[in-house]
Amino acid sequence: MKVLRRAILPRGFEANGIACGIKKSGNLDLALLYSNIAAKAACQFTTNKILAAPLIVDKRCLKINKEFRAVIVNSGNANCFTGRSGIKDAEETSKELARVLKIKKEAVLLSSTGIIGRRLPLAKIKKNIGKLSQGLSSSGIDKAKVAIMTTDTFAKEISLKFKIAGRQATLCGIAKGAGMIAPNMATMLAFLLTDANISQLALQQALKICVAESFNCITIDGCMSTNDSVILLANGAAKNKLIAAGKDFNQFVDALRIACLELAKMIVRDAEGATKFITLEISGAKNLREAKQAGQYIANSNLFKTAMYGQNHNFGRIVAAVGASGIEVREEDLRIKVSSLAKKDILVKVNLSRGKSGCRVYTCDLTPQYIKINAEYN
Amino acid sequence: MKVLRRAILPRGFEANGIACGIKKSGNLDLALLYSNIAAKAACQFTTNKILAAPLIVDKRCLKINKEFRAVIVNSGNANCFTGRSGIKDAEETSKELARVLKIKKEAVLLSSTGIIGRRLPLAKIKKNIGKLSQGLSSSGIDKAKVAIMTTDTFAKEISLKFKIAGRQATLCGIAKGAGMIAPNMATMLAFLLTDANISQLALQQALKICVAESFNCITIDGCMSTNDSVILLANGAAKNKLIAAGKDFNQFVDALRIACLELAKMIVRDAEGATKFITLEISGAKNLREAKQAGQYIANSNLFKTAMYGQNHNFGRIVAAVGASGIEVREEDLRIKVSSLAKKDILVKVNLSRGKSGCRVYTCDLTPQYIKINAEYN
Repeated sequence: MKVLRRAILPRGFEANGIACGIKKSGNLDLALLYSNIAAKAACQFTTNKILAAPLIVDKRCLKINKEFRAVIVNSGNANCFTGRSGIKDAEETSKELARVLKIKKEAVLLSSTGIIGRRLPLAKIKKNIGKLSQGLSSSGIDKAKVAIMTTDTFAKEISLKFKIAGRQATLCGIAKGAGMIAPNMATMLAFLLTDANISQLALQQALKICVAESFNCITIDGCMSTNDSVILLANGAAKNKLIAAGKDFNQFVDALRIACLELAKMIVRDAEGATKFITLEISGAKNLREAKQAGQYIANSNLFKTAMYGQNHNFGRIVAAVGASGIEVREEDLRIKVSSLAKKDILVKVNLSRGKSGCRVYTCDLTPQYIKINAEYN
Repeated sequence: MKVLRRAILPRGFEANGIACGIKKSGNLDLALLYSNIAAKAACQFTTNKILAAPLIVDKRCLKINKEFRAVIVNSGNANCFTGRSGIKDAEETSKELARVLKIKKEAVLLSSTGIIGRRLPLAKIKKNIGKLSQGLSSSGIDKAKVAIMTTDTFAKEISLKFKIAGRQATLCGIAKGAGMIAPNMATMLAFLLTDANISQLALQQALKICVAESFNCITIDGCMSTNDSVILLANGAAKNKLIAAGKDFNQFVDALRIACLELAKMIVRDAEGATKFITLEISGAKNLREAKQAGQYIANSNLFKTAMYGQNHNFGRIVAAVGASGIEVREEDLRIKVSSLAKKDILVKVNLSRGKSGCRVYTCDLTPQYIKINAEYN
């Protein structure tokens, strides 16, 4: 397996990104991912009870349709808490894109990210869909990966080339993150494209497994977004024997796991205002649920995060967070080890001495810069 | 009922506060509250699974003993995550105080607040217990209220004078707060003293009711401490007819409710680095649990808190927090109203339109100063 730190589109995919005026800055804000043949889709969405309009429309499409051709993504506006008008705006976007690309509107998936509670500037989007579509190319992913960013300071991208069922396949992923990131959902926006030929069920299972170990194991501020989505398209252009189970499935999961985990770590590395990348290694838990609970509680503790920022050896805050997490841990069993706080990458090992399960949770420190960014963002 | 914004000890109580060298600053760090007759006690402790040593010792005393005479409190050291040695240190403190005051050691309650994971400087405490006891006086509460402070910038104090069962009674409360404050426990340290004559059961019930509506409705950083305690002593010196139930009980609860709520609000007002005092008024909930859940989720959202700091009308963050709280709220039912963000006191009204329950949760903004304080605190 070959891992590349940049996005390279698999066979049959094209992409583009343009500026259509949603962002005041004039930066790229509209992205399109396109498969020139029908692709299967697997998606994981936020568990927030307030769902952004594009997710409501996506969920409907996924129910009635199994063949997808395009994903259109805008940044700068979340199209959330916008009521029926917001849903209409999302539907209008799909319809216009479908018309221009000459595909069915149910073959379009939508994503939005940005501020909540403002109407999408639909006229700007519709006016630019022609230009967006005309500019599609196999190198256009380099514009798409930028057009999905909000407060991100670098594009998150990865590609894997691997042999599967006798053929060479490619998996490519891009993501955006930065803030409002918390576990227990398909966090933030990530788009994964592969030319592997895989059954619908296997595709969904693979995504579920990999999201649980990657995007759901990161937390920046404990705030669960209304728009978070991971969308995986597989168009079968690699023409391998259909992957359904067994060794081939495991190989596909291995590739997808690496892509998801690397993108998730990039999101933490680029967290708003962060100066530290922290890996929490929880061991000795009774089960995975318990390990995640302890890890996420520590990771979301503002007191822990500020101590890491201050390179402050106040490890009592780790103790207090574990105790508050609800796990029946005993003081005398708790073992904590922390690597050098002076370095950018910090490893915190917490052994609960209760069982044999463990997990890793990735997080960052809490800094004055996070507050500055979020006090001003609108 | 007369409410005074300063601590005045009820009949039969004395207090003192001294500097014994636990704090590097040389500030007052050891407080004593004393009743010259036997007092009943009601306590509420943190639900953190890691309990500080003084709380472990207090819980034992409360099981085997019903008559209390003294509460000794140190600041600057939490005596938590200190294992058996920590418990021994707490027991030694009780024993020495009991010896000096000529009372039973089971009649002593202990509290500690400060850094977690460091041994208590027992020698310094023991050496100064004589001085602490000799200095007891009815005006000594003014020193005690300062000696319990850590990063607090002002002392939290209140007194109520009220008629009950035909007699004049007094209720006096002091508290410390500042950081590591989260609901669902008897938050932070608060000490309440009254000369009212009240049954053990009524005393406990009254405290439970009032803590639920006050200290458990505030949150500063969502971090639950290992040391939080509310201790209420009633020595009966007012000589009223024993309060057990009915009108007298309700009157006592009214007074205790005001004392607890005012102290709780003072803690929020003095939150580390805070520039805003925020009241979240939740209405239209199906039940109280749901109202509290929504309120606490919003109050603990770093994104909401930074928006309040930045006077940023990004109310989508309130929507996202309510949606993430797990309540089955519908977007079209959610009504949000926010008062002027330019003022220090902000009122946020959230109507869930699901039922008739409601509650108030008190919180503050998240500021660069909070991070500075907690990056450096040790």
